[in-house]
Amino acid sequence: MNRQIVLNQRPTTIVDDSTTRVVEVPEPTCGPNQAVVKVAMLSIDPTIRTWMNDAPGYLPPIGIGEVIRSSGAGVVVSSRSARYQVGDVVFGMTNWQEWAVADDENRFSVVPTGLGLDLATVMNVLGVTGITAYFGLLDVGEFRPGDVVVVSGAAGATGSVVGQLAKARGAGKVVGIAGGPDKCAEVVEHYGFDDCLDYRESGLSSRLRSACPNGVDLYFDNVGGAVLDAALASIAMRGRVVLCGAISQYNESGHPRGIANTSMLIMRRASMRGFIVLDFLERYGEAQSALATMVRDGALVHREHLVHGLEHAPDALNLLFSGGNHGKTLVVVDDGVALA
Amino acid sequence: MNRQIVLNQRPTTIVDDSTTRVVEVPEPTCGPNQAVVKVAMLSIDPTIRTWMNDAPGYLPPIGIGEVIRSSGAGVVVSSRSARYQVGDVVFGMTNWQEWAVADDENRFSVVPTGLGLDLATVMNVLGVTGITAYFGLLDVGEFRPGDVVVVSGAAGATGSVVGQLAKARGAGKVVGIAGGPDKCAEVVEHYGFDDCLDYRESGLSSRLRSACPNGVDLYFDNVGGAVLDAALASIAMRGRVVLCGAISQYNESGHPRGIANTSMLIMRRASMRGFIVLDFLERYGEAQSALATMVRDGALVHREHLVHGLEHAPDALNLLFSGGNHGKTLVVVDDGVALA
Repeated sequence: MNRQIVLNQRPTTIVDDSTTRVVEVPEPTCGPNQAVVKVAMLSIDPTIRTWMNDAPGYLPPIGIGEVIRSSGAGVVVSSRSARYQVGDVVFGMTNWQEWAVADDENRFSVVPTGLGLDLATVMNVLGVTGITAYFGLLDVGEFRPGDVVVVSGAAGATGSVVGQLAKARGAGKVVGIAGGPDKCAEVVEHYGFDDCLDYRESGLSSRLRSACPNGVDLYFDNVGGAVLDAALASIAMRGRVVLCGAISQYNESGHPRGIANTSMLIMRRASMRGFIVLDFLERYGEAQSALATMVRDGALVHREHLVHGLEHAPDALNLLFSGGNHGKTLVVVDDGVALA
Repeated sequence: MNRQIVLNQRPTTIVDDSTTRVVEVPEPTCGPNQAVVKVAMLSIDPTIRTWMNDAPGYLPPIGIGEVIRSSGAGVVVSSRSARYQVGDVVFGMTNWQEWAVADDENRFSVVPTGLGLDLATVMNVLGVTGITAYFGLLDVGEFRPGDVVVVSGAAGATGSVVGQLAKARGAGKVVGIAGGPDKCAEVVEHYGFDDCLDYRESGLSSRLRSACPNGVDLYFDNVGGAVLDAALASIAMRGRVVLCGAISQYNESGHPRGIANTSMLIMRRASMRGFIVLDFLERYGEAQSALATMVRDGALVHREHLVHGLEHAPDALNLLFSGGNHGKTLVVVDDGVALA
């Protein structure tokens, strides 16, 4: 059988017991030009929460009764497609289930062997979170050496890579923003940022101004809301704001918190630009190659937060919003699958 | 004597009788490398209101007791500078007074004669409002033929030029946003926009969606606040928002209205960029030449709203916010000065 987690009803705040339910359907069979994938690991990303809302987005909402959309990795157990060989470890939209089907429409990429990295590391640094950090900083943010860079969600899977990459490429200063003293200590001590500010304490705007007295050249925003507003107040002349996500808003129902400081974009001739990593799909290899080299050289440290058991995927998703995770959150569906 | 209007106390909402006062000081004398300018006309721009606040901006606030900062035009009546000849009509920071001094620090540009345009037209279309429209649309907004363009403050001096320029350069559709049925009629019938929406009526977001069913490629924002939010909700994939001004917010004290739809920039991979026309100072000639040609060819219509008397400058400024003006608001200080 194939256990699946489907959307039961749309959440209004955090995901709870009524949001999803577990169903069992027959294991998929392998049709022409298809491959059947035994799912090993799910990538738990904040964007999944946005797909649960009945709201316009960059992908359609997940339908009631549909399997929760998610990327993940697994191993090919049968194939009638020239794209996939039995035994290949593949990455793609597995969704929250034990068995997935890869075909021409739902394409998976074959994870190269011989990287010297385990599957969790590959799913973190070489997965969408790492790739998002790479293109968001370098392409969307037009990072330049000497830039004063501020990153929110700095202890998170994307934020931690943004900061380390900026340091490695010659940033003038890298300041993180994270929730709570433990996370802030982790950002400085483990990920090597120059400083980290706790957004849960009061006076973020003035603390940011003190940390970046000449302004913020590049602000990489993972959270939106009040933190984005504080960063706008300190934006430097011709500064750039990269909108990657707005995790502070995803569990809010009703009207989102307004951003009051947009007129700073006028005063400082600054820009704010949103992006979705899927737009860089054809250049993923470039990012993965650069990031894999950094990991092997010890220039990029990373943490994975493993949650065991498909049925715990909804709780794992909530960890992203409560801050209960440390590093990239992954759900282990089948721990018998490993990269060679 | 030199009559001046100085800042008496900072306004909290609109400018009123307590905001400014008239003072008389001796006429300036002409020092070395200086020229004395008899002021003929003041350019009344929304940005003047922002300089009255004790808040960070692209220029320092006007000090209490200082003459209200303003651009304007006049004629050189005495000169000890090689830059200016007696009789030259010049444009620069005259401030709100009858006599101004041009020197190496406060430089004026000499208005070329032989344009075949009167002074009011030059101060409108070839002044900062027209130049702002030109660079905001073409450079900051990266206008492309075929773009669906939306302009707020569409009946205003900048907005009306933005729309006509977009039409002339091959926009797919040009939609204005203005206040009240008269202004909206003027935008379509006089300035030749394809459509104009009244922001004072309810449901602006849905009316904008109907007017631009495939989304807004380029939104030129002069007003900020709720109108900016509505435009963001309709932004097209890879759309561009040009932040030129936020006139709806300038008379508001306290916290400005928050923009709720910034996450649309992520969904639509869109960007929002602020600018100040002063950044294009060295390219003003390019804009003025293009705009003067359009006026002479009848491709650019324009209106000036003349207010007579220096002492009425504060009331003239309030017209910009009440919507009581039609076209570029100018204060005639001395109607004896004319372009040859």
